[in-house]
Amino acid sequence: MARQLLELCGTDPARRFSPFCWRSRMALAHKGLDAEVVPWRFTENATLAALGGKTVPILVDGDATLTDSWDIAVYLDQHYPAAPTLFQGPPETYRFIAAWTDTVLSAGVARLIVSDILPLLSETACAYFKESREKRFGMPLDQVTAEREARLPEFRASLAPLRRALGMQAFLGGAAPDYADYIVFGSFMWARVVSPLRLLEADDAVEAWRGRMLELFGGLARAVPAMEG
Amino acid sequence: MARQLLELCGTDPARRFSPFCWRSRMALAHKGLDAEVVPWRFTENATLAALGGKTVPILVDGDATLTDSWDIAVYLDQHYPAAPTLFQGPPETYRFIAAWTDTVLSAGVARLIVSDILPLLSETACAYFKESREKRFGMPLDQVTAEREARLPEFRASLAPLRRALGMQAFLGGAAPDYADYIVFGSFMWARVVSPLRLLEADDAVEAWRGRMLELFGGLARAVPAMEG
Repeated sequence: MARQLLELCGTDPARRFSPFCWRSRMALAHKGLDAEVVPWRFTENATLAALGGKTVPILVDGDATLTDSWDIAVYLDQHYPAAPTLFQGPPETYRFIAAWTDTVLSAGVARLIVSDILPLLSETACAYFKESREKRFGMPLDQVTAEREARLPEFRASLAPLRRALGMQAFLGGAAPDYADYIVFGSFMWARVVSPLRLLEADDAVEAWRGRMLELFGGLARAVPAMEG
Repeated sequence: MARQLLELCGTDPARRFSPFCWRSRMALAHKGLDAEVVPWRFTENATLAALGGKTVPILVDGDATLTDSWDIAVYLDQHYPAAPTLFQGPPETYRFIAAWTDTVLSAGVARLIVSDILPLLSETACAYFKESREKRFGMPLDQVTAEREARLPEFRASLAPLRRALGMQAFLGGAAPDYADYIVFGSFMWARVVSPLRLLEADDAVEAWRGRMLELFGGLARAVPAMEG
């Protein structure tokens, strides 16, 4: 089998924490497809360039190489039409939830957990990550996440649309998960793998959904080493 | 033709401003269906009760009566399958954008324009609306919308997911609008009909989309009298 997924990891190759890589890993499982994990670490850019990409995930599936999580999902539905579909309608109808996840959810998660990523990285990867993210945030990373417990209520309030939708049905896809669930879940896996901070309260409908997502495909996501307490 | 849509209006029956009624009016147009406008005003609850409903819109289509905008959309796709579909996938996959519209967009619009509704209403309707909404907000309505110009940047920032999605494609539905577009557009029609406040900047991708929505179906939405300057 020549199917491989390049996934971001820390020094420990088991600690896979990229939200975008999780979208693709769950998408592959949804389609019933195995793919060898190829651990990738920050600064290993020559590996990406050789495949024609700039970021992970990258899927290599026989002759096909896909260098973006969105393209991977579209490809999987096109090339494996007999397996359960990721997109139950045109992919365009999933753009809004991806945009919400990127601009609201992941942005909010980053402000709570970004400094927790540093200890998981090698010296080289850590130096790169620290410099590039401090530039992006305009401040030291421990300042980004300062007083984060006090900011949890605001973060949880930002999840109101998710909470309302998941109060009406088990998954964003309906009775069963679809790619919308994997998009959103990726951001929660990012937090789970790197940070001890509990983002959600126990009685939150979003937390109940996250529990269901962790159990999918034989507990695929739950099995990955996590810092979550 | 026995098709009627009960729609909220002000003293002037042409001023139809309910975001939920706009969802259904646009949905009917999308399906190529006419429906007589039956103007409904706050406190005319006996009319709703006679039809088995508590709120507008209500669609009466021959023997069928639908008392909720969501149910109306689902019904239209089921009973008029030959016309263009409102839901390009299962309706459940549209729950998230409806939840976002209700909890973020409409909540934000309300805090900017709710006091502008009062002058459009009859004395009886106005008294009801004022009392029920002041109870909901816990303050006088002119206090809810106080200093609203200063809060516009925050409101516009809350539209980031919409802006990003509409920067990638012409409509939330893709190259053509679908029910997701009508859900979101309803909240903008609410503001347009009742308030002179300009919610969006001219160079905003959301404003460009709103312009396209106003032109649909021969300018159906643009033709309605509006307070927008």
